[in-house]
Amino acid sequence: MRIDGRKNEQVRHVKITRNYTKYAEGSVLIEVGETKVLCNASIEEKVPPFLKGSGEGWITAEYNMLPRATHTRKVRDIAKLKLDGRTMEIQRLIGRALRSVVDLKALGEKTIWIDCDVIQADGGTRTSSITGAFVALVDAINKLHKAHPFEIYPIRNFVTAVSVGIVNNEKYIDLCYEEDSKAKVDMNIVMTDTGEFVEVQGTGEEAPFNREELNSLLSLGEKGVKQMITAQKDALKMDALWIGTGDRG
Amino acid sequence: MRIDGRKNEQVRHVKITRNYTKYAEGSVLIEVGETKVLCNASIEEKVPPFLKGSGEGWITAEYNMLPRATHTRKVRDIAKLKLDGRTMEIQRLIGRALRSVVDLKALGEKTIWIDCDVIQADGGTRTSSITGAFVALVDAINKLHKAHPFEIYPIRNFVTAVSVGIVNNEKYIDLCYEEDSKAKVDMNIVMTDTGEFVEVQGTGEEAPFNREELNSLLSLGEKGVKQMITAQKDALKMDALWIGTGDRG
Amino acid sequence: MRIDGRKNEQVRHVKITRNYTKYAEGSVLIEVGETKVLCNASIEEKVPPFLKGSGEGWITAEYNMLPRATHTRKVRDIAKLKLDGRTMEIQRLIGRALRSVVDLKALGEKTIWIDCDVIQADGGTRTSSITGAFVALVDAINKLHKAHPFEIYPIRNFVTAVSVGIVNNEKYIDLCYEEDSKAKVDMNIVMTDTGEFVEVQGTGEEAPFNREELNSLLSLGEKGVKQMITAQKDALKMDALWIGTGDRG
Amino acid sequence: MRIDGRKNEQVRHVKITRNYTKYAEGSVLIEVGETKVLCNASIEEKVPPFLKGSGEGWITAEYNMLPRATHTRKVRDIAKLKLDGRTMEIQRLIGRALRSVVDLKALGEKTIWIDCDVIQADGGTRTSSITGAFVALVDAINKLHKAHPFEIYPIRNFVTAVSVGIVNNEKYIDLCYEEDSKAKVDMNIVMTDTGEFVEVQGTGEEAPFNREELNSLLSLGEKGVKQMITAQKDALKMDALWIGTGDRG
Amino acid sequence: MRIDGRKNEQVRHVKITRNYTKYAEGSVLIEVGETKVLCNASIEEKVPPFLKGSGEGWITAEYNMLPRATHTRKVRDIAKLKLDGRTMEIQRLIGRALRSVVDLKALGEKTIWIDCDVIQADGGTRTSSITGAFVALVDAINKLHKAHPFEIYPIRNFVTAVSVGIVNNEKYIDLCYEEDSKAKVDMNIVMTDTGEFVEVQGTGEEAPFNREELNSLLSLGEKGVKQMITAQKDALKMDALWIGTGDRG
Amino acid sequence: MRIDGRKNEQVRHVKITRNYTKYAEGSVLIEVGETKVLCNASIEEKVPPFLKGSGEGWITAEYNMLPRATHTRKVRDIAKLKLDGRTMEIQRLIGRALRSVVDLKALGEKTIWIDCDVIQADGGTRTSSITGAFVALVDAINKLHKAHPFEIYPIRNFVTAVSVGIVNNEKYIDLCYEEDSKAKVDMNIVMTDTGEFVEVQGTGEEAPFNREELNSLLSLGEKGVKQMITAQKDALKMDALWIGTGDRG
Repeated sequence: MRIDGRKNEQVRHVKITRNYTKYAEGSVLIEVGETKVLCNASIEEKVPPFLKGSGEGWITAEYNMLPRATHTRKVRDIAKLKLDGRTMEIQRLIGRALRSVVDLKALGEKTIWIDCDVIQADGGTRTSSITGAFVALVDAINKLHKAHPFEIYPIRNFVTAVSVGIVNNEKYIDLCYEEDSKAKVDMNIVMTDTGEFVEVQGTGEEAPFNREELNSLLSLGEKGVKQMITAQKDALKMDALWIGTGDRG
Repeated sequence: MRIDGRKNEQVRHVKITRNYTKYAEGSVLIEVGETKVLCNASIEEKVPPFLKGSGEGWITAEYNMLPRATHTRKVRDIAKLKLDGRTMEIQRLIGRALRSVVDLKALGEKTIWIDCDVIQADGGTRTSSITGAFVALVDAINKLHKAHPFEIYPIRNFVTAVSVGIVNNEKYIDLCYEEDSKAKVDMNIVMTDTGEFVEVQGTGEEAPFNREELNSLLSLGEKGVKQMITAQKDALKMDALWIGTGDRG
Repeated sequence: MRIDGRKNEQVRHVKITRNYTKYAEGSVLIEVGETKVLCNASIEEKVPPFLKGSGEGWITAEYNMLPRATHTRKVRDIAKLKLDGRTMEIQRLIGRALRSVVDLKALGEKTIWIDCDVIQADGGTRTSSITGAFVALVDAINKLHKAHPFEIYPIRNFVTAVSVGIVNNEKYIDLCYEEDSKAKVDMNIVMTDTGEFVEVQGTGEEAPFNREELNSLLSLGEKGVKQMITAQKDALKMDALWIGTGDRG
Repeated sequence: MRIDGRKNEQVRHVKITRNYTKYAEGSVLIEVGETKVLCNASIEEKVPPFLKGSGEGWITAEYNMLPRATHTRKVRDIAKLKLDGRTMEIQRLIGRALRSVVDLKALGEKTIWIDCDVIQADGGTRTSSITGAFVALVDAINKLHKAHPFEIYPIRNFVTAVSVGIVNNEKYIDLCYEEDSKAKVDMNIVMTDTGEFVEVQGTGEEAPFNREELNSLLSLGEKGVKQMITAQKDALKMDALWIGTGDRG
Repeated sequence: MRIDGRKNEQVRHVKITRNYTKYAEGSVLIEVGETKVLCNASIEEKVPPFLKGSGEGWITAEYNMLPRATHTRKVRDIAKLKLDGRTMEIQRLIGRALRSVVDLKALGEKTIWIDCDVIQADGGTRTSSITGAFVALVDAINKLHKAHPFEIYPIRNFVTAVSVGIVNNEKYIDLCYEEDSKAKVDMNIVMTDTGEFVEVQGTGEEAPFNREELNSLLSLGEKGVKQMITAQKDALKMDALWIGTGDRG
Repeated sequence: MRIDGRKNEQVRHVKITRNYTKYAEGSVLIEVGETKVLCNASIEEKVPPFLKGSGEGWITAEYNMLPRATHTRKVRDIAKLKLDGRTMEIQRLIGRALRSVVDLKALGEKTIWIDCDVIQADGGTRTSSITGAFVALVDAINKLHKAHPFEIYPIRNFVTAVSVGIVNNEKYIDLCYEEDSKAKVDMNIVMTDTGEFVEVQGTGEEAPFNREELNSLLSLGEKGVKQMITAQKDALKMDALWIGTGDRG
């Protein structure tokens, strides 16, 4: 039995609150157990220089932990004039994950900024960010779609993420902080609702892992992803209806 | 009648949620109308260099708006490698306001960090930050006091803040964003529960103001401050009992 | 009697030297007692992005203390890669003060940069900066006006500033450093020559202050402002003749 | 057939030059095809603050591309005052990879700095960096071991890395730049000589990938890793003899 | 005849005002023609890390141009977060020049900070800075010497600097800005009062120069240096008496 | 006899490898004794703002030491967010040296970036950088000339550099690190193949030097420069044929 009574293949309780703030085009508070991330999607009517004139859009993410999202207070990046490496890694991952399910040509020349601000961190902030950000992205894109229908609705698939790991020789899904800090192997899996992988990142800093362990973790991840997609679908309900249809308005 | 139906001397609805996050020694979500600020108080067992060995403590504040707390997305400070001037002004104000009601000698050599992160901005974020941060500070200090009673309980008074301004020749209290953007005079008043001023900042960038207008705004501010202190007292209830007693545990 | 023999309502000796350096369009060395600030006004034929195409001009200020303007050497901002908060606060105040008396539409699409560099600091550097910068601004605008008369002369009023404070229960005007460091209340007042307030900033970090004290300080401030405006008029003489006339060349 | 005539499961020619520069404790130029990376290992007799007094050592890596390692000149980080995200990601990966095979307690309180400077980039710079850096690390640690034998020789295993990917529906190993830029799936595999995984990072930004594709890529990766370890062994020869022995001098 | 009527080998009028500001241990305003530099010397009772415990002192310089010291306003370094290369070059030169005539062992473990802030720039700011800074340094060191006599008085020689250059095939000394901007060769010479060179920097960016031209410029420089040393001696008078004596108090 | 057996007026062995990397338009590895610098020249089809529309080109240099080019590891600039002063000084010198022999009007509106990255430093890195960078510059310009002949071939002269110094009262040429660290006078001389000076920088921080010593060092420098130009000519062979011809294609 796990610290919080869960079964090995059971994710924590997921709560997705849409329209959490009033200005962002998409605004989602996602709570996965005690992890809480505010995911806002903002639409900007221009693209980065490398896409100007290409007809294609862009999705980019920024991730940040509020100073007291953790046990001890974390100094703000601006106080050190440096973005830390972990933050960079995570925000690049979120951006890639969301872009992987969006038809950027169909989106057209606009940028969608995803801001994931962690209000409370209890493990799994990067996977929760992806899961919540996807819902915020759908809301932002639907706002555009309702005002001026896209020729091709740009979201092709659901995308979500979950962590898996090996703790005390047990394979767990959706590790909380206490489990995570004792894990010998730690893996983040980003998948679509068609059961395909977008990103697999497994690390065995404490100890390397073998092919068999990797396979078990992947299988476990697939189970978790399904639970997360269910949570996204429950939150979006009818607002998910265009996803994957290539709807033409 | 004002945009939202309030009377001139009426503050917006104030909601103070304590223990909003689980790690900070004091954690308050304050909502004043649609303005929402998360105020966390963190205790650090050391002081800045200029106080080392002095026996005195310190209270310092950091203020930040999440990128989409406002109508249009605000670029993060770290992306520009610069803290903007408005942010600096506000966080210095919050720090001074809180230090003005604390006996730093009684606190002893520790620093209390106040983090005010604005989740949604609809006017009055700096005054709401002070009002909410005070409650978080009380919770943090009480945590210390319950573990190891202070010789002298360090909080001497309540402190709170409210904005007043002149909009279309009407004098309003607690301006929302729409009012604030049309104000010809804008003033922030920080006061204690004994009716004394800690800070008065009035600006007439659009047009200067005369002594009579200044007096009316000060009187209006005093009314608003009382409403804010009532909200703080309602939130803290019995946990405010040591304030001003110089209690010796 | 005060440290330097002044009466409570007496400002220090003010000396305003125009054309102090030869390149700036307006260049003033202001000396208020032993405080010395070089105030240069520079004209730039463009405006910040948010005003492009608006037909309006802009006035912005930068404030800086030379490293040894003070008792101990202050590390330069560039060595820390950070502008300190006090500097930001002051330069924002100077900019607001000057903009409050200028018709920016009449000025047209140009920026006037005000550089206030403190050569020696003995209290009151922010108020001296405003007082001196106004004279430099007049010189810079007159240079434009003489070359190509404005349709409407853009300066509507004189603006000046003075500090007041409570030291040892006495209310003083224009505090020198030694007085300032012992003040329990410290207030800066920015006013026009028509006796209206542009900015009022009062702080009681050491101890809060009551309404009556606030009133006395405001009255004292009004007296000081008059002395400062006299100094500005003595310095400008005939060059002040267009101020407030809305002169059309 | 691949662009450069290789078979799908064939890595490029690997050349490892030890003692490439004369000051570093370990200095390796690794060439994998036309990719050239200088990997220097430097010993510092202290550890980062979080390890002070712990008795444990640390290994950390910095990665950098010289401005003209690529087709177009890359602006130096210092000119932008920002380390780019890709660089951060890579140097964190190199550090984790090397730490995973070192007994940091056995190493004792010292830091080994790994500097990977890319002189010419033709795909696979991160995997080549790991492969070359491991050899430089062995040389640096042997220098210590020869001077003052460790109680337990701290290197437990070889570690190396290789890239695999799907290009035009073919699964390739060790992609050169031209292949990499057309890959729909891109994976980096870090493994030990015992056939265990240290890190697996697979990304399908262009298109997601299924479990079967993932499995094929992993199998391909295992083949490539063997070739890389052979290259390391050929370079180190007798100097690899202590690895994994836990030798006590 | 030169622009300002001077002869080729004649330096501009030099005015050295000591005790220009009241806080610095040495404070000199040097005016060379229309070039004005404030040179402050500050004593700090510690040394940089590389000298800790060595018994030796250090002298370091910072150079800065006020924004409107020049024809067009120069953006402050802090606004760009970068110290420009010319500034770095000059401040390193000033530091080397002063250290070359000071016995740092005799000075003991303290740092003297030299701040050269250019108030008005009309050519020759780096050489004027050296000439003025030396006088400020003498004043600061004498303040120490009078309070607690050094065993060995640490200043061994006068040091001063002058510029020479070739303009329209004429060889000029102490170039003003207008001359400098047309010079085909530009040289800065730093010398002691014993007629020895401390630093020679000649640049022919417009056109290279031959050995003969170099020799003429060096001879011209020697003449200029003598005039500058006379100005320093006139300013210091009796306060220069310990220089070079190795006086033991 | 010198440390490495050389005669006083003998430079170290010089090896110039052209086309060292494959992407840069000019790429040279220069080895002078044990000093190794990679000099890459990159062509960019635009100029800095101050030259836009002028018809003139620009040449600019960046210099950098790899962290372990030296005895102890040097922290990267980006880790400190500051370019150090020595680096700035050197890269400005390299830029001036190369520009002095190029007809920038003939080059036309393009920028040539010179990147000098020091792989191993054993004294003379700045002079070696100039010597190597000139060869890389010739290669880059010839690439342009062969594709689209310049009306006037823009390189007017060879330029090269050498160091001289006084060590133990002996005058040496091309000092290695061990000699350099004991030198009482240190001078860098940049010259053309016509025997004219482009830059002379002599520093006597340890002790000042007299006119006679300066003359001997200049004469010695002239000898060294000849050896360096021979090395450049040997490396370039027929590819140097256009230099100085003002060839019109």
